[in-house]
Amino acid sequence: MAIAEFTIIPIGTATTSLSGYVADLHKELERHEDIRFQMTPMGTILEGPLDRLFEVIRAVHEVPFLHGAARVSTSIKIDDRRDKHASMEQKMQSVADKL
Amino acid sequence: MAIAEFTIIPIGTATTSLSGYVADLHKELERHEDIRFQMTPMGTILEGPLDRLFEVIRAVHEVPFLHGAARVSTSIKIDDRRDKHASMEQKMQSVADKL
Amino acid sequence: MAIAEFTIIPIGTATTSLSGYVADLHKELERHEDIRFQMTPMGTILEGPLDRLFEVIRAVHEVPFLHGAARVSTSIKIDDRRDKHASMEQKMQSVADKL
Amino acid sequence: MAIAEFTIIPIGTATTSLSGYVADLHKELERHEDIRFQMTPMGTILEGPLDRLFEVIRAVHEVPFLHGAARVSTSIKIDDRRDKHASMEQKMQSVADKL
Repeated sequence: MAIAEFTIIPIGTATTSLSGYVADLHKELERHEDIRFQMTPMGTILEGPLDRLFEVIRAVHEVPFLHGAARVSTSIKIDDRRDKHASMEQKMQSVADKL
Repeated sequence: MAIAEFTIIPIGTATTSLSGYVADLHKELERHEDIRFQMTPMGTILEGPLDRLFEVIRAVHEVPFLHGAARVSTSIKIDDRRDKHASMEQKMQSVADKL
Repeated sequence: MAIAEFTIIPIGTATTSLSGYVADLHKELERHEDIRFQMTPMGTILEGPLDRLFEVIRAVHEVPFLHGAARVSTSIKIDDRRDKHASMEQKMQSVADKL
Repeated sequence: MAIAEFTIIPIGTATTSLSGYVADLHKELERHEDIRFQMTPMGTILEGPLDRLFEVIRAVHEVPFLHGAARVSTSIKIDDRRDKHASMEQKMQSVADKL
């Protein structure tokens, strides 16, 4: 199990609003029921088996093209810890415990 | 007003746990009372005047060095929209409205 | 064809030097002969079919674990342009032409 | 001395080409003669005192707005190593020495 965050930006959209694109990504994510996700004001965080995270991000990267974009910039950050199980909640809790 | 996200990783820490470092960042952030922040499982999101965001991120980048780190990797993403006010909540709400 | 950049950071390595890990990534990349790559002082840039880029980055992400790392932070940026062919050289040339 | 990489993407530009924006950034960078920089197909790498890097990135972030952009996404990665001097060339050489 790993945790990843991605941000997908369509380029050349003629509008500064991206919320429609983000809503489309959200719908695609809901189709992948084995993967937990959480949207933030700056991206989307996923938790699941690493190979599945790669597959799901590959799938959502395609979404803006299906809605008319001709160029997409996708940034991804993966946190892959294998010495202990680290869920999204456990990471937050570890910090809270230290505060 | 802009929104930014940062992730700070100390390198060469001898331990895979970073929650102590993240807790230290949190304490530094609380000193900057004019800046709103929200921690996520993958980073910290800030909202405020752009120049202040740069100053605050510069300050938190220093924190791991004060606690013994000798090398730090900091990644920052800024979303700066000037045609309308976009708070963290408004960005989330715009997506929710489309769903 | 798309262009991607990745940076892989092992966490908890007890040393601030990462060049040994980067050299290991380099060796893995050389095994994927269909993918062009270019190292920079801040990461590695790849060019090739998008699905192959995902596969290759998935493979190099595994390398630090094979050499003892227990936690790895990988960041990836993909530039996927489909309205025209954009190689690494063409992107650089387009900017040079404007200067 | 630290090393940083940044990528600046204007959003809502109506064109998928960004090379004109990148050329503008380049001209701004040349005004900061104390900072070394190197363009890559995926961003721009800077080397210099950390506080100056923050100032210069703050300045180049402003450039697309001066040329009509209303929203800009800027991503930054900082590699700040304080146990030894690490220039762009030394980082590359350290990897080459291991290969």
